[in-house]
This record gives sequence, structure tokens and C-alpha cells, in this order.
Amino acid sequence: MAKHMQRDLEKLQGLVLKMAGHVEGAIYSSIRALRDRDPDAAKRVTDGDNEIDQMENEVQEECLKILALHQPVAVDLRRIAAVMLISTDLERMGDLAVGIAERAEMLAVPPTISVPERLAHMTAATTDMVRKALDAFVHQDVAAARTVVRLDDVVDDDNDHIIAWLTAEMKKSPDLVDAGISLFSAVRHLERIADHATNIAEDVIYLVEGEIVRHKPQAIQPAAH
Amino acid sequence: MAKHMQRDLEKLQGLVLKMAGHVEGAIYSSIRALRDRDPDAAKRVTDGDNEIDQMENEVQEECLKILALHQPVAVDLRRIAAVMLISTDLERMGDLAVGIAERAEMLAVPPTISVPERLAHMTAATTDMVRKALDAFVHQDVAAARTVVRLDDVVDDDNDHIIAWLTAEMKKSPDLVDAGISLFSAVRHLERIADHATNIAEDVIYLVEGEIVRHKPQAIQPAAH
Repeated sequence: MAKHMQRDLEKLQGLVLKMAGHVEGAIYSSIRALRDRDPDAAKRVTDGDNEIDQMENEVQEECLKILALHQPVAVDLRRIAAVMLISTDLERMGDLAVGIAERAEMLAVPPTISVPERLAHMTAATTDMVRKALDAFVHQDVAAARTVVRLDDVVDDDNDHIIAWLTAEMKKSPDLVDAGISLFSAVRHLERIADHATNIAEDVIYLVEGEIVRHKPQAIQPAAH
Repeated sequence: MAKHMQRDLEKLQGLVLKMAGHVEGAIYSSIRALRDRDPDAAKRVTDGDNEIDQMENEVQEECLKILALHQPVAVDLRRIAAVMLISTDLERMGDLAVGIAERAEMLAVPPTISVPERLAHMTAATTDMVRKALDAFVHQDVAAARTVVRLDDVVDDDNDHIIAWLTAEMKKSPDLVDAGISLFSAVRHLERIADHATNIAEDVIYLVEGEIVRHKPQAIQPAAH
């Protein structure tokens, strides 16, 4: 029985990692579509979201099956609970990538606003957080999870920098307000993706230490802004 | 054993409803702070978020305890899984109310942008969705849950209307760009609160019917925008 459960847990982990890979790809592609003003690439991200959604359903079903079949306790139970929350975060990251792709489609037509250099840095930092959060989950590595929580500050700095630049551009050129609002939304979506990666890292810390850090000062998640 | 579990499930439901009441209050107060340009009211929302966070922790702990102690199956198991996801949605609604309150603090200082009439309608529709989603959960009422999913379109319409107005204001008066961006963020936060209410309603449908509607066309959740 315990052996069967371990096998099922490994299968579950494989599903989550596959889902995370798809989500990471969607984030990169949506930002690339934004940068290259490529509406076809944006459409591919939107079309691909269905697969991510199906993966979430599959993960949730697997979790319920394992709970009902093996009735795990202690750390195994917490691991299932963590997977349920992690898959929800991943699915919402996928939705946010679609949101970015939709902005990319809007921004592909004039009048165009330039995409700030700093966005590449923010994207790299965000996808780095997503990857590290999942690695931390797989290896149940609390130190790595805490690194992810700290990295969120880097993304927040990038976000603040870009928003300040964007606001200044809109003041200078009111005809860029529509494009500016679209780009603002896309940047905020990226920042929220980083917040979801932080949620995952906090779930990993809880999984390993049984300590809820989500709402503690040392790892507090900034409120939405 | 079954009797003990029912008692624990009722206690759990009571916790969730208490949490929902706090969240609903936070949403109303944050919007009132925005409308009345009242930074003190805004600060009370921010200060109150800690309590909502603690409630989420309590709910999650109770869920794990019930799973480990009673090892529920079938509908009881799905009910616990739904509560875990619902409490996460409620906690994020609380964060979004804090986000609105932070914007309210910024918008309390000149230059001021007028708060559109339509925001009152959007707020009423959103809190209505939150209340109806929780009612649907308590009474396991699928019809009510489907109403919530449909109501999201009303909120989206309000959102689109307000954003169009706001964009026009910013084009006319570039000195209002900063205030406009803050108000835009607050409105988007409110729209995301409605999305979370939709998530809860979809979880209720899943709980009762065992059917995952989250990603089905008839009840599909619009991508983030």
C-alpha cells in the first residue's frame, strides 16, 4: 500500500512538473509576443491555455484519488494539499500569460509605445522564480524556497521602475495613454505571476517545516498593488 | 466517528463564513475609503488584513486535521478540498481589498480624479457575487452558483465602462495620469475580486456535481485582462 502510494505520488509530481513546464513556456512566449509585436505568437499562447487548464483538472483529480485510496497522513497528506494549491497557482499563472498575450495583440497596432529594456530583466527574474519554486518543491528544499520569496523583491523593483517610466511617457504623450494602459496591465500581470511563484515557495516551506510562513513578517507577501 | 466528522465539518463551515464576512467588510470599506478620500479608513482595512490571514491558516489547519482524523471519502472529501481552495480565494480577496485601500491612500491627495458613479454599481455587484458564492457553498446550491458565474459578466461590463472613461480622462488631462493609474489599479483589483468569487462558485458546482466547470465553455472564466 505504502509502495503504491509512493508510486502515485511520483506520478502526481510528474504531472505538476509537466504543467509547470507548459506555464513557463507560456510566460516566455507571451512576453516575446509583446516585445516583437507578434500577434500570431500571442494567439498561440491563448490557444495553448486550454491544455494547461486540462492539466490542472487532471492534477486535482489525482489528488482526490490518492486521498480517497491511500488516506495519507502527516507529511504525505501535506504534500497532497500542497500540490492542490500549487496546481491552482500554476493555472492562474497560465491565465495571466494569456492576459499578457491579449495585451500583446493590442500593442501590435499603432500608435506604438516602446517596450522598456527592463522588462527583459523582470521576465527573466520571474521565470527564474517559477523554476526555482518548483525545484524547491521537488527537492523539498526550504533554503531554495526562501530564496524565491526574497527574489520577489527584485521583481517588485523592476515593476516599480517600469511603471514610473511608463507613467512619465503617458504624461509626455497623451496619445500613448491607451497603449500605456495596455503595457501597464501586461507588466502588472507579470508581477502577479511572480507573486504566485512566491505562494508556491511558501507552500513548500509549510510542507517541509509545518510552519505557515505565508503571513509571517520574514516572508510576508506584499499586498496586491 | 461519522457524527464527529459532521460536527467538525460544521465547525469548519462556520470558520469559512466568518472569514467571508470579514473579507466582504474589507471590500466595502476599501471602496468607501476610495470614494470618501479617507486615508484613515484605508489604513483600517490594511491593519485588518492580518486577521483574515490568520483565519486562512486556521481553516487550512482544520482541513488537514479532519483529513488525517476522519479520512473522509466521496462528497465529504470533495467538501474539504473545496474549503481549502475557497479559503485561499478569500485570503486573496482580502489582499486585493488591501491593494484598493493603498490606492485610496494615494488618491486622497491632490491632484484628485473624480470617482465614477459606476464604481458603486460594480462594488455592489462584486460583493453580491461574494455573498451569493458563499451561500451557494453553504446550501450546496448549483443553480445559485451558476448565477454567480453569470454575474461576472455584469462586473466585467462595469469594468470596461469605467476603464474607457478613465482612459479618456487621462488623455484630456495628462496631469491626472498618476491618479488615473492608481484608480485604474483599484478598479482592476475589484474586478479580480469578482473573478475569485467566480472561482468559488465553480468549486461549488464541482463539489455538488463532481463536474469540473472551471474550464468549460458554458462557465468559462475570462482570462485576466
